[in-house]
Amino acid sequence: MTNMKFRAEITVMPLKALLDPQGKAITGSMKNLDLPQISNVRVGKHISLLVEADNKNQAAETIETACKKLLANPIMEYYEFSVFEEEA
Amino acid sequence: MTNMKFRAEITVMPLKALLDPQGKAITGSMKNLDLPQISNVRVGKHISLLVEADNKNQAAETIETACKKLLANPIMEYYEFSVFEEEA
Repeated sequence: MTNMKFRAEITVMPLKALLDPQGKAITGSMKNLDLPQISNVRVGKHISLLVEADNKNQAAETIETACKKLLANPIMEYYEFSVFEEEA
Repeated sequence: MTNMKFRAEITVMPLKALLDPQGKAITGSMKNLDLPQISNVRVGKHISLLVEADNKNQAAETIETACKKLLANPIMEYYEFSVFEEEA
């Protein structure tokens, strides 16, 4: 049986308890761009990737491992992801 | 009438036609982490923010302006966003 392909969309954000200097800077810039109605900007990473797996659960486990080992730093960041079956 | 608050989740990714060196490097690292089933990694930004607006359409227009003026570089990046009504 050939493996199935899944696409993962992963979001890695600074922990809510931590300051986010980049987000603060962007919030400040919004005022200068005549967009004072924008606030609480936070900036993180978005990662998309393909996984080969037998099923969606296995794909999710692989992505979980990748997040823990490489993509997110748990001291400063949390992550969320969605898995989609990729059209052949 | 007081304004409503909306939360926007914005994804800014490198254009699909462009190489993404950071993603390529991560794809390579996956092999070394015993995760060769992961491929086609692409890395972009995720931005979350709050907008005050009278309604969801106005909020979406404001976010569109913010993306064009500051958050995304259209030469190298595309953006997508979702808008959610924020609980009071």
